[in-house]
Amino acid sequence: MTARIIDGEAIAAEIRVSLKREVEKLLLSGKSRPGLAAVLVGDDPASHTYVRLKRKASAEVGIESVAQELAADSSQEQIENLVHELNADPTIHGILVQLPLPQGIDEEAVLGAISIEKDVDGFHPLNIGKLAMKGREPLFVPATPAGCITLLKSAGATLQGANAVVVGRSNIVGMPAALLLVRENATVTICHSRTKDLQSVCRNADILIAAIGRAEMIRGDWIKPGAFVIDVGTNRVDDASKERGYRLVGDVAFDEAIEVAQAITPVPGGVGPMTIAGLLRNTLQSAQRLQGYMGEAML
Amino acid sequence: MTARIIDGEAIAAEIRVSLKREVEKLLLSGKSRPGLAAVLVGDDPASHTYVRLKRKASAEVGIESVAQELAADSSQEQIENLVHELNADPTIHGILVQLPLPQGIDEEAVLGAISIEKDVDGFHPLNIGKLAMKGREPLFVPATPAGCITLLKSAGATLQGANAVVVGRSNIVGMPAALLLVRENATVTICHSRTKDLQSVCRNADILIAAIGRAEMIRGDWIKPGAFVIDVGTNRVDDASKERGYRLVGDVAFDEAIEVAQAITPVPGGVGPMTIAGLLRNTLQSAQRLQGYMGEAML
Repeated sequence: MTARIIDGEAIAAEIRVSLKREVEKLLLSGKSRPGLAAVLVGDDPASHTYVRLKRKASAEVGIESVAQELAADSSQEQIENLVHELNADPTIHGILVQLPLPQGIDEEAVLGAISIEKDVDGFHPLNIGKLAMKGREPLFVPATPAGCITLLKSAGATLQGANAVVVGRSNIVGMPAALLLVRENATVTICHSRTKDLQSVCRNADILIAAIGRAEMIRGDWIKPGAFVIDVGTNRVDDASKERGYRLVGDVAFDEAIEVAQAITPVPGGVGPMTIAGLLRNTLQSAQRLQGYMGEAML
Repeated sequence: MTARIIDGEAIAAEIRVSLKREVEKLLLSGKSRPGLAAVLVGDDPASHTYVRLKRKASAEVGIESVAQELAADSSQEQIENLVHELNADPTIHGILVQLPLPQGIDEEAVLGAISIEKDVDGFHPLNIGKLAMKGREPLFVPATPAGCITLLKSAGATLQGANAVVVGRSNIVGMPAALLLVRENATVTICHSRTKDLQSVCRNADILIAAIGRAEMIRGDWIKPGAFVIDVGTNRVDDASKERGYRLVGDVAFDEAIEVAQAITPVPGGVGPMTIAGLLRNTLQSAQRLQGYMGEAML
């Protein structure tokens, strides 16, 4: 059996189309255009690239974005003051602080300063707590784990009652993905660097989410035949045949896994595009909520 | 092999002794006595019993407790106003709202009104979120799941790398217990009513926490030989031989499990006593923190 490839680009493109339509409806109803502020501290080139990509994607769906750049030597107070200004700015419905922040800055305090109502990344502990709790609804679901669930559903996976294994327990992917899977009534196993015999645990997974950041660590024979595999990893491996000297691979050995799985995401082109789409969706939903506009349910 | 019985009464008694000593040290340093307020709405006899037990245990370790009773027909506003008064009262370091609240009362709003710094039950979503997140520390760990971990450690269980299975995903036991086990570097599987072949999942557990509320559902042959079993359930089953007409049993068939496990908690006398001890510990820690007193680390 050769697995179906779950096309994150195509699914994210569909989401962007519906986001654009919803933005237009919001404007037609007389409300303001959704506004997203990206706080960028210092000169990290990768961070600048990420913010540029997010702003470009925002523009495509009609979300106004602003990049708020601060010097690398900005003080804690300066960064938090900027966040407070954005909290108070009625044209801004979502605030993201591009990580990592420069050394010496208290990241928890900066993220904690973001108004819970504009925390479109969904990383605030209050949001994560609500995600973990029955009967509570987070204001925002973190984009990458939400994207994993959307991809699984698009691929036709049954989540309820499935054995789902999440490898990695990060705050931004692994743990919230596990909590979302519990909400979907999957039986969820959370694995990490201290897990013994990871291979056997993975081989029992109907649904496998890999978010460890280790190139091709999960091999084909770790995968249960017919499983759905979501590969969140994006790792560089040296490749002299490429002009830039490397290629991107996931946490799963794709060429092996595709022979065993029922469906699998590629890297790149799987989870990645969903992350930005999720951020835009959260920003639109925030603009709808803050302006008292009832939007349609979206992926 | 016959399992060791994990004596929750004895361990809770030890904790109470150390709590009493810490309360005395706090007073000797010139600080105020820890104060715990229990909010009790309506006439539910079980709720009155629980509050009475908590107050009695408070008195034994030197914690001042007050029961704030409101009539069953109290309004949302009256209950929340009481919570706000207690938030502002400097003699109160811990507030617990005895659940369930009468029908028609928004429980989430009442619990959400408790100051995060006095939420000694640890049920606030901000607390649960921090529990779920790496690098964050909750102000309070919910008492029952904390008690499960303490009992496991007292019994000599190795948590790091262990396969831990939590059956039940409630906000007050199952989910926070799972999150605590992840923090202890166990590989954690969260099971619930939709889990398929629960028996096989349980049989793979080095550590099994049962918190489902179904009398003796987990049988001896569901248990891996040598496992550590924590039984959170307290269920009534009819028993004509008892004066009161019933006996209490756990979620685990104790007489069968004891032949297979390495160590197991009884019901009653296992997790139950740890719950009240954990509440008292949280109240003491809150009194220490709110008064700027650095106490000693406790179980």
